[in-house]
Amino acid sequence: MTRFALTVEFDGTPFFGLQRQKKGPSVQQSIEDAAHAVTGEEVTLHSAGRTDSGVHALAMRCHLDIEKDIEPFRLSQAINAHLRPDPVAITHCEIKPDDWHARFSCIGRSYEYRIRNRRAPLTLEKNRAWHVARPLDADAMHEAAQSLVGQHDFTTFRSAHCQSNDPVKTLDTLNVSREGDLVIIRAAARSFLHHQVRSMVGTLAMVGHGQWPVEQVAKALEARDRAALGLNAPPQGLYFVAARYPDDIQEN
Amino acid sequence: MTRFALTVEFDGTPFFGLQRQKKGPSVQQSIEDAAHAVTGEEVTLHSAGRTDSGVHALAMRCHLDIEKDIEPFRLSQAINAHLRPDPVAITHCEIKPDDWHARFSCIGRSYEYRIRNRRAPLTLEKNRAWHVARPLDADAMHEAAQSLVGQHDFTTFRSAHCQSNDPVKTLDTLNVSREGDLVIIRAAARSFLHHQVRSMVGTLAMVGHGQWPVEQVAKALEARDRAALGLNAPPQGLYFVAARYPDDIQEN
Repeated sequence: MTRFALTVEFDGTPFFGLQRQKKGPSVQQSIEDAAHAVTGEEVTLHSAGRTDSGVHALAMRCHLDIEKDIEPFRLSQAINAHLRPDPVAITHCEIKPDDWHARFSCIGRSYEYRIRNRRAPLTLEKNRAWHVARPLDADAMHEAAQSLVGQHDFTTFRSAHCQSNDPVKTLDTLNVSREGDLVIIRAAARSFLHHQVRSMVGTLAMVGHGQWPVEQVAKALEARDRAALGLNAPPQGLYFVAARYPDDIQEN
Repeated sequence: MTRFALTVEFDGTPFFGLQRQKKGPSVQQSIEDAAHAVTGEEVTLHSAGRTDSGVHALAMRCHLDIEKDIEPFRLSQAINAHLRPDPVAITHCEIKPDDWHARFSCIGRSYEYRIRNRRAPLTLEKNRAWHVARPLDADAMHEAAQSLVGQHDFTTFRSAHCQSNDPVKTLDTLNVSREGDLVIIRAAARSFLHHQVRSMVGTLAMVGHGQWPVEQVAKALEARDRAALGLNAPPQGLYFVAARYPDDIQEN
């Protein structure tokens, strides 16, 4: 048995999320089916994070265990061949020790959320960004975001379906910046609650529109109540961009 | 009659090109139909450039003449509403003098060509870039590209269907740069021949692969013969990025 770590890129649009679902196609099922076609083995994919329907990944980190004797590069090429035409690709593959776990060894996760802030509808970025027509004040959003950085009880910013035992998380970074009419929110933490990034982004957008004063974000956090949430941003603007492990030579 | 200048963004994937075609949908037809729905008038769209099936635009410049009394912003919003669900959007609209012509007044056009140079197939960039699996030497491509800059007879890099009277064009810029595994080619000229950018990119890729020495690009140009062409790059990596006019306050 060899443990293979995979770096995976996918367009989340046609999937019901990363995790295997009874109700429809998932990234996990696509990769497990492709790996089965290559090896003849029933494999289980483990991932650094779970992503919702419509959420994308630039470099999700995963692993699977395989009996077949195969080189990592050859395995990734063969899985990629079988993944077609699904919009999922293995961009890197390497062998890891048996105690390396894509989910449990992961010590850092980062996301990017893209908002296209303009009146005109999206064309090339359809399903790739959140289209917000009303002007957003990215500086005010960034200022409000700083009240969420640090260790907090993030109950307000947590899905009703979140399975985490503990709503206390440490948010390392939440930066909002503007490049032309693109507003990008970058979030990093050891781990996130379900819907946390989208909930934070949606609430910051309330500040960006001027509907909420900057201070209201801190008050919503203190409320520890989902009812205090401003808005949950839609999935198509969200990208899982990197996972970090103790044995990484360099950060992704 | 009022002349409205439009800035247009589109995803070229579902279209048979910008120009109206008998064989299938075109960007021109989508916009003309939407403008007709708004004004009740039969309008004709004129564009700075023509683009092939699958080629995209970030900021194509066009114009149309309308009798109806309507504000530019309101016109663009109404056209955008009628364009749905086609991936075409009017990102800017303004009134121009009657002698301003999107095609004939245009004094500069620029394109960008995106190559994703990696082994793994494309996911989020499917239909948005040329996927080249074999390594490309972008520095060698850039060096070879410089032999094409300036005034030349570009017969080698011209489609058999090109309708231009004169194969002599002045290429102002042809820069090749690498950002990670993305190779970007930026081309600017007053005007281009049909297929010129894609022909230049395909030929530079031959140099990038090491199949052609750098000097062979200059020889292909001197041959003035389509048979000397290396390769015509596929349309999905090509973006029309800007058109320039004498009355522009700032360059796009």
